[in-house]
Amino acid sequence: MSKINENFNKLQSGYLFATTAKKVGAFSAANPDKKVIKMSIGDATQPLAPAVIAAIKKAADEMGTLEGFRGYGPDFGYDFLREVIAENDFKARGVDISADEIFISDSAKCDTGNIQELFSTDLTIAVLDPVYPTYVDTNVMAGRTGDYNPARGNFDGIIYMPASAENGFKPALPKEVPGLIYLCYPNNPTGTTLSKSELSTWVDYAKKNGSLILFDAAYEAYISHADIPHSIYEIEGAKDVAIEFRSFSKTAGFTGTRCAFTVIPKGLTAKDASGNDVSLHGLWGRRMSTKFNGVPYIIQRAAEACYSPEGKVQLKQTIDYYMNNAKILREGLTAAGISCYGGVDAPYIWIKTPGDFGSWDFFDYLLANTAVAGTPGVGFGNAGEGYLRLTAFNTTENTLEAVARIQKLKF
Amino acid sequence: MSKINENFNKLQSGYLFATTAKKVGAFSAANPDKKVIKMSIGDATQPLAPAVIAAIKKAADEMGTLEGFRGYGPDFGYDFLREVIAENDFKARGVDISADEIFISDSAKCDTGNIQELFSTDLTIAVLDPVYPTYVDTNVMAGRTGDYNPARGNFDGIIYMPASAENGFKPALPKEVPGLIYLCYPNNPTGTTLSKSELSTWVDYAKKNGSLILFDAAYEAYISHADIPHSIYEIEGAKDVAIEFRSFSKTAGFTGTRCAFTVIPKGLTAKDASGNDVSLHGLWGRRMSTKFNGVPYIIQRAAEACYSPEGKVQLKQTIDYYMNNAKILREGLTAAGISCYGGVDAPYIWIKTPGDFGSWDFFDYLLANTAVAGTPGVGFGNAGEGYLRLTAFNTTENTLEAVARIQKLKF
Repeated sequence: MSKINENFNKLQSGYLFATTAKKVGAFSAANPDKKVIKMSIGDATQPLAPAVIAAIKKAADEMGTLEGFRGYGPDFGYDFLREVIAENDFKARGVDISADEIFISDSAKCDTGNIQELFSTDLTIAVLDPVYPTYVDTNVMAGRTGDYNPARGNFDGIIYMPASAENGFKPALPKEVPGLIYLCYPNNPTGTTLSKSELSTWVDYAKKNGSLILFDAAYEAYISHADIPHSIYEIEGAKDVAIEFRSFSKTAGFTGTRCAFTVIPKGLTAKDASGNDVSLHGLWGRRMSTKFNGVPYIIQRAAEACYSPEGKVQLKQTIDYYMNNAKILREGLTAAGISCYGGVDAPYIWIKTPGDFGSWDFFDYLLANTAVAGTPGVGFGNAGEGYLRLTAFNTTENTLEAVARIQKLKF
Repeated sequence: MSKINENFNKLQSGYLFATTAKKVGAFSAANPDKKVIKMSIGDATQPLAPAVIAAIKKAADEMGTLEGFRGYGPDFGYDFLREVIAENDFKARGVDISADEIFISDSAKCDTGNIQELFSTDLTIAVLDPVYPTYVDTNVMAGRTGDYNPARGNFDGIIYMPASAENGFKPALPKEVPGLIYLCYPNNPTGTTLSKSELSTWVDYAKKNGSLILFDAAYEAYISHADIPHSIYEIEGAKDVAIEFRSFSKTAGFTGTRCAFTVIPKGLTAKDASGNDVSLHGLWGRRMSTKFNGVPYIIQRAAEACYSPEGKVQLKQTIDYYMNNAKILREGLTAAGISCYGGVDAPYIWIKTPGDFGSWDFFDYLLANTAVAGTPGVGFGNAGEGYLRLTAFNTTENTLEAVARIQKLKF
């Protein structure tokens, strides 16, 4: 008889963004005259760069010829892409990551969700709280956690590391040692960052305790301050303790175009039951050869174009555009008496809900009174209660309008 | 401490196609003057259809405008694609599958590999022998099998259902009842098919025993005979017992373009530990929302174009081209005294190795003496020993040359 994976039953309600999307849909249906400004999901809105479009069309033409047609690509991505990544994202920053340590994929969501497959289900994971839901839910599905604990509002068997205004959004190192530590910096959802020396303490902790850091750097392109590391491998010793996840989604507006990559240094290992060191590069390679069939050739060419001289200029313009929106949000909301965090080296503004508003109450209030849709902070974890996330990905026009609408409210 | 998933240690050597590719690479390096004809991996060689190229370029242009830009798409695929699939692949054949029962993905390899996540790890799976390796390896990685049994040359805890010339490649129904039954028809690797009445016996068996059929129909576009079902849902009752996997890889030469879909009828259920019926449509939806972020918009438009009037004509021409190659192979090898199976409603020819040749010996012999690369049958399972798979995906010119080279050998 076919029986389900019972771990799925532990999951709570819908995926966060599906729930907010439903609420926004219901509001729109009930208020057809009101223009909803969506600042909830972190989705790009600006067009793909002309260099990217040109690369797609050129690759499409190639695929239409017998000589230029490409079938299955190399399992871990084309060398032309792996090499420009190694050169531009790592070597140019003085980081020694080689092309064959880079695995091209369709999505950092997929990679951060799938990476746990490499590890024993009896490992304990540690996550920041608030946290991107995929890290937690994929471990729940795999049976690496306990049940949902309704009294506490999160899962048993996970080490949650709270980050809030009280600790300056710098979580303390965990006392109980986790096998896997998920870190995301620049952080989703809070938009906050760690300096090199702050990130060093995590690398040192992992080294000392034998933990592995899963470092999600999907937002590194938004960093403007020199002391904020773009890659965890800028930190001494990180190649021995960390896997890094990157994405073109936010860097190049590829949320609907789909390309990402994961970096696993060749010397990185974890233990097997007999205490032997096993190469995680080899293990992930086996996982990807068996369960993945690569990113479209056309899309890999599109990603490559992001590193061309004109591509770089065009991407930078769009990132500057979004970061100007972030500035408008921060300054406008601060002027309205709302405390804002993040939004300096990241496209997310993490606002403290005014007065006694809980996260969902404020989400509902904001939607009802300004037609601005954010994401309730508590949706990312308990420590997110009393916060709401706004993104800088809308147009400047809409961002200005959202600020103007919010400024009319009395708190 | 970070510890690995020990189940990975049960896996045997490299992925089959990686191993054959290495051998071919070594041969090419040692024989730079010899033209290798690759008939190993089932990879398309003909250009993408002009209708597909045009759709890609149009979508790329859209993505370059503010109005036409698309970020994250709907979790389960765009309606424009789900609807043409439902209409053309199902309704047009009298099969009642609706658009919202179709989940768009990047790969049938991914989907057939990931689907097992929905099920309890203590289920037993049944697979055909020979079998597409992904079905087995993904269950091994999940811990749903026992260890590799070196004496028997396959995994403990899996029900293998041998298919060979002795039983006409029609495996007997399993005596021990499996939770999940993987069926692939038209079959990879043997190229053989089941008639509607033969497939009905599997549906009836599943219904009677509470098993679930995972039906891989990636090669349905190659069917030319009316009695061979394109979809398992052509069989009465199949919607209660089967999930179906489809792909554009072989249908439209999308091996390097990446689009596929999985069909889960809304009424299909499996039991939870308390004996409740749980919707598999809902469970897969949850899995996909959590661990997947959709197929590129541009690629979904490319897939849609396969169903346009000109797209259909163009795809048919390419399939006819490949099936003419299959005919050349079958007839040419038969004339050379080699027994061939399959290749009538499928792009694979399953040849009986002549004389005392084992699969790998014959693979090596053929490569060394004709520079033709096949895939050793035993690489797909024990019952594949004494067979070799050739594909019809090369050019007609190369196919004719391969036949001519093989015909010169003495057996």
